[in-house]
Amino acid sequence: MRAEIISIGTELLLGRTINSDAALVARELATHGIDLFHVQTVGDNAARLAQALELALSRSDLVITTGGLGPTTDDLTREVVATVTGCPLEEDPESLARLHAWFGDNPLDSAQLRQVMVPRTALVFANEHGTAPGCGLTTPGGRHIALLPGPPRELEPMLEGPCRQWLERLAGGVLEVYDIRTFGIGEGAAASRLEDLAHGANPTVATYAADGEMFVRVSARAASADQARQLAAPVVEEVSSRLGEFIYGVNVPSLAWVVLDLLRGTGASVATAESCTGGLLARLLTDVPGASEVFGAGLVTYANWAKRKFLDIPGAMLKTFGAVSPETARAMAAAARRRCDADYGLGISGIAGPDGGSPEKPVGLVYIALDDGGENWLRTMRTVGRYRGRAWTRQQAASNALDLLRRRLLRLPMQAEGLPVVQNS
Amino acid sequence: MRAEIISIGTELLLGRTINSDAALVARELATHGIDLFHVQTVGDNAARLAQALELALSRSDLVITTGGLGPTTDDLTREVVATVTGCPLEEDPESLARLHAWFGDNPLDSAQLRQVMVPRTALVFANEHGTAPGCGLTTPGGRHIALLPGPPRELEPMLEGPCRQWLERLAGGVLEVYDIRTFGIGEGAAASRLEDLAHGANPTVATYAADGEMFVRVSARAASADQARQLAAPVVEEVSSRLGEFIYGVNVPSLAWVVLDLLRGTGASVATAESCTGGLLARLLTDVPGASEVFGAGLVTYANWAKRKFLDIPGAMLKTFGAVSPETARAMAAAARRRCDADYGLGISGIAGPDGGSPEKPVGLVYIALDDGGENWLRTMRTVGRYRGRAWTRQQAASNALDLLRRRLLRLPMQAEGLPVVQNS
Repeated sequence: MRAEIISIGTELLLGRTINSDAALVARELATHGIDLFHVQTVGDNAARLAQALELALSRSDLVITTGGLGPTTDDLTREVVATVTGCPLEEDPESLARLHAWFGDNPLDSAQLRQVMVPRTALVFANEHGTAPGCGLTTPGGRHIALLPGPPRELEPMLEGPCRQWLERLAGGVLEVYDIRTFGIGEGAAASRLEDLAHGANPTVATYAADGEMFVRVSARAASADQARQLAAPVVEEVSSRLGEFIYGVNVPSLAWVVLDLLRGTGASVATAESCTGGLLARLLTDVPGASEVFGAGLVTYANWAKRKFLDIPGAMLKTFGAVSPETARAMAAAARRRCDADYGLGISGIAGPDGGSPEKPVGLVYIALDDGGENWLRTMRTVGRYRGRAWTRQQAASNALDLLRRRLLRLPMQAEGLPVVQNS
Repeated sequence: MRAEIISIGTELLLGRTINSDAALVARELATHGIDLFHVQTVGDNAARLAQALELALSRSDLVITTGGLGPTTDDLTREVVATVTGCPLEEDPESLARLHAWFGDNPLDSAQLRQVMVPRTALVFANEHGTAPGCGLTTPGGRHIALLPGPPRELEPMLEGPCRQWLERLAGGVLEVYDIRTFGIGEGAAASRLEDLAHGANPTVATYAADGEMFVRVSARAASADQARQLAAPVVEEVSSRLGEFIYGVNVPSLAWVVLDLLRGTGASVATAESCTGGLLARLLTDVPGASEVFGAGLVTYANWAKRKFLDIPGAMLKTFGAVSPETARAMAAAARRRCDADYGLGISGIAGPDGGSPEKPVGLVYIALDDGGENWLRTMRTVGRYRGRAWTRQQAASNALDLLRRRLLRLPMQAEGLPVVQNS
């Protein structure tokens, strides 16, 4: 099956919105093993949308549109699809009831009511996070079209919910998806370890990189969810054994989430002392709802006086070794733990750049320490190749701190090939 | 002039990469007042790229491609453009010299050398951040084509540098661009204040929303930069007078950057005490290189014990009013200032959600306080309409704190229509 996406919205052509929808849909199609060859973007213009749709239907079996389903006069997707495919629109009673429920006692005007008109033969996809339903239909000519909403917070749950089921039916069978998330291995290195697995059609294995991490998506299709799980299991296991301890979780939201979950499981707590990351590590931990159970405090000691005052780092240490030193990072981790009565302390000190480097302490040098009261580990991060910027350096430093703690909590080796060097004390 | 973008790369069709390039190019075209009607995305496939290019040349005057210029065998853009347009490729000596300089003493293989082949009549755009040059050419048929690299860190400077100059020549004249950045006014409210200005062709006025802020881009085209500046000046002034104190800067990187710059200008310093934002405010300040001159320390006091220990918040206050209260937020700001010997203290306490709300203190309620040693201001943020999530709530809370400080430093009113209520003490 050949698929094509049509992204609809003048805001995309003005550069006011980045087309993240196309990537969400593309990833979903890849998960089903459906080939995507074209994406077209057009504005809120009926003639150009009709042309785009005709072109897509002439060369693709499955067309997915995003956007243009809302209540305003700019929203033309429904009507254009009806005209081009010859499938007239009808009011969908269930969508109407949902719309009434959404607006409560407020009366609905005709603009709002347009949204519940769907092509007569379509399967309606309920919108749990907005007013316009999506739908999927098969044209008299045997092409499949899905109409999906533009706002990502509405699109994503619809894609993973009713639209996935509709695509499963088209592709035949139920899909099970496993996102195997890693930290510390590059996409290139992971892909080469998994090369022979990447050519399978069912399950499919694909690698993705995002925000300094990579993950592997394994998806299996079968007649039932149980069978799909059974089909996927050996591949998930094989991927897991090849990427080993770089994997921090399967179908989990983030590395910080996993670390907090591990801490919660053992009733332990963590505290942070940050210099160059300036609060980023604390922010990553508190991005996770419920972090307060295991994270009570973090100290952002950006200046040397703050390291002395809040962490009792001796002035002599700062003078002899400098704020960016193994000694200071280790002392910061220990002090965070002690001063916050936590079980684990994390300390980070480095040169995030772009300025402030020297021949001895170049930009990108970051010391990351973990203290558990008994032992103290130090990971030294250095720029490999070209310096990749302040934001990247800070993100990697904070993630390395979380990874150190994860390895400690799971009693894994603190050192691994490809990761920055770790020294124990 | 009608423009079209062709985004090239199989990673886009697999959903591995979000197509942010198209938005960057679209915004640049809008800045020039050039109409963009179509974006096509195709994979690294010569036949489909050729078809896309032929379609684009049949309906558009200007075609901009991104991607496919690198050294690997997947990178086909140069060759396909040469074939379709009939403009043969030639080695560009200047690009060759740059490539040798980039790799230093390392020998160049034939794959790397492919990158310096450009269409014979093209104007070469030097790549300051990568190895593959871009270029712009006019075909024998009178169409214009620009070939630009895919990685955003290479694309963006090329777009704003040599490519902008090439587009200026096509569109006739020099462009001056002013990004007027605001906080505290919604895009809808701003757009309605500027409605009559939005229809001008030169200067153009357009609004953009991003990360809970909006900005206005004014761009003027004239025969010289001086003339363009003169043309833009009255419009920039008019926009400035209509959006007034919501504007925090023109052509500046961020609100935090402006606040740090103002502090630096007066030799003053700031300290932070964060509960629900959990380090995000400190992170925003330290995102800016050189923040250490005015920001020395921040305290992330997520738990109540941490508010008592690090900020001396009385247990009785926490018990009587709660951690999320005007009293506690004000005390946090004052304590941050005092304990860090800073001129200004910022305190944030609230319920970022999604859980933890109550009828009296619902999710989205955040108290944001500023203390300058003499006065203490409190801004109360509440969910208006639907709750927009934890990340959005935290981002808005941190930005509100920065905005309070900006207003204090500029002696502006702390309260403005549309912004959360402020009380002085």
